[in-house]
Amino acid sequence: MNGVVVSVLTQKKLEIEPSAIDRLLESTALDMAKVNDLILTRADSHVEMVPELARYLIDSGGKRLRPMLTVASAALFGGGHGSAINFAAAVEFMHNATLLHDDVVDDSDMRRGRPAARMIWGNQASVLVGDFLLGQAFMMMVETRDVDALGVLAAAAAAMAEGEVLQLSKTGDLSTTAQDYAAVIRAKTATLFESACEVGAMAGGAGKIGRHALKTFGLELGNAFQLVDDVLDYRGAADTIGKNRGDDLREGKMTLPVILALADGSKAEQDLITAALGDAEASDATVVQIVEILERHETLTQTLDQARDHADAAVAALEVLPTSELRDLLADVVRFSVSRAY
Amino acid sequence: MNGVVVSVLTQKKLEIEPSAIDRLLESTALDMAKVNDLILTRADSHVEMVPELARYLIDSGGKRLRPMLTVASAALFGGGHGSAINFAAAVEFMHNATLLHDDVVDDSDMRRGRPAARMIWGNQASVLVGDFLLGQAFMMMVETRDVDALGVLAAAAAAMAEGEVLQLSKTGDLSTTAQDYAAVIRAKTATLFESACEVGAMAGGAGKIGRHALKTFGLELGNAFQLVDDVLDYRGAADTIGKNRGDDLREGKMTLPVILALADGSKAEQDLITAALGDAEASDATVVQIVEILERHETLTQTLDQARDHADAAVAALEVLPTSELRDLLADVVRFSVSRAY
Repeated sequence: MNGVVVSVLTQKKLEIEPSAIDRLLESTALDMAKVNDLILTRADSHVEMVPELARYLIDSGGKRLRPMLTVASAALFGGGHGSAINFAAAVEFMHNATLLHDDVVDDSDMRRGRPAARMIWGNQASVLVGDFLLGQAFMMMVETRDVDALGVLAAAAAAMAEGEVLQLSKTGDLSTTAQDYAAVIRAKTATLFESACEVGAMAGGAGKIGRHALKTFGLELGNAFQLVDDVLDYRGAADTIGKNRGDDLREGKMTLPVILALADGSKAEQDLITAALGDAEASDATVVQIVEILERHETLTQTLDQARDHADAAVAALEVLPTSELRDLLADVVRFSVSRAY
Repeated sequence: MNGVVVSVLTQKKLEIEPSAIDRLLESTALDMAKVNDLILTRADSHVEMVPELARYLIDSGGKRLRPMLTVASAALFGGGHGSAINFAAAVEFMHNATLLHDDVVDDSDMRRGRPAARMIWGNQASVLVGDFLLGQAFMMMVETRDVDALGVLAAAAAAMAEGEVLQLSKTGDLSTTAQDYAAVIRAKTATLFESACEVGAMAGGAGKIGRHALKTFGLELGNAFQLVDDVLDYRGAADTIGKNRGDDLREGKMTLPVILALADGSKAEQDLITAALGDAEASDATVVQIVEILERHETLTQTLDQARDHADAAVAALEVLPTSELRDLLADVVRFSVSRAY
């Protein structure tokens, strides 16, 4: 079933597959029921505050896209469900640990449309429960006894943290280049998508070619996903992105739409952007003004063009695999992820 | 060479082995040179802030007791140096990651007699570089391909975080029991000593009995170590403990000396302690007053008695092993650790 989505901001009509994620949910439902059980079990602890906080975040309506990608990647190769389920839950824990720490680092008030965990339990508990989830993630990986896959995820954990530090060190840095930005989103976001798909393929018994295809698929999907996210931060409505529009701007995050606008804009426009960047108190009116500059120089559109390129690369990566319904579905998921921003 | 240490506070003379740590340093020097090289290599990153911050902490004059225990534990069984060195460096990274996060959680200004990393690079970078070190730790473990030892350290990572959350949830909680406290120090401190020794023994090729002996040795040494630390927080001079005397009190930490004093003290004494607990601005004069209460009820001495019991258990655990110079040295290290507080 195709739907038609009309974006208020771009006024473009696009035929898309709004149901791709729903179909992925359906296709992975049996495995995801096991993953969800494992997640609940492993978020438990005799220390009360741990499951309280962990479950608040875990149950907060995230789509669980990453673990779905892990079990779907395994299913593409027809097997390895036991390990795939452990890896899927581990990937989701790594993701949630990162969210907890990111919200502390970014002083974020909201996450997925609700108060961030740190607003309820504090920064301290958010840091420590993040550490707990990371430890539990590694325990689940160890249980598979698959050292190679463990190596993939351990490297991802280090690279993700490195990416976050890079982003932090570039905060408000007007000399940040598009290349710097590419390195940041590669490390902080794309790496986990890449690893989620790669270890899924490994658990499914993929050979060298299949493993590489899924690794590339995940990487490119992750890059596309973050580019779209960074556009939505300026184009999205608060109720769809689950946080405040313009948060990246207020946090001084040098994302591609801003980097390109600083390069293309007039002196006056540059000054406006520079003044707002990192100003936690920047008003909604200021954000609207900045969005006008970004739209005028089409930097949001250019960013989406890059997202589309990555999405195309993701879909292309799957083409070495035999055609199947699941392969087509994964391609649709990529297309849907990009369509979110129109 | 025996030395005589006279504590200003207890006025007890004790014949101790002040050189036990020095002798351990000497005994493990060859392995530790490799561990230190590995630590420097793995603290590196193309993201500048990472090695800057990591090295500031790593080079700050910590004794590297935990990794020394790992290589010494391996050496007791005569081998496995390659893995032991990776595990030792991984253990030190886990420890340093915990310190970075703890200083954020505790709002600590000082660490090892210098400004805490967060005072220079900020809380945000401290959280993220801690995450990076944890990721690197797991990568070094994975390289050994020893899944069982990996499982030991992954479980330790989760348990340590759990212990920190437990401690946080008991902060300023006057109903905290001695049992709660035992659970906290077991998890947050003793677990890493336990794992450091256990994986060392595993890497050295220990059998079941040897592995269990070192596991128990590490656990009991860790418990003793933390009990002594908690006494030193009240008895130590700032220049020997590397932080301010009374910090635990100001942070509202329910350590055993305070828990016992709240149980034994008069109403007036209880009120004094209660008022000072968690008061970040409590004066040095107030700390002196609280120390007088603790000394009056001998709760510092009782805490040290418990430390000595754990130290005895640590030494006893080694007795199943054949006598050797290294075994005796490890026993001396335990005795020295407890003697720090007299």
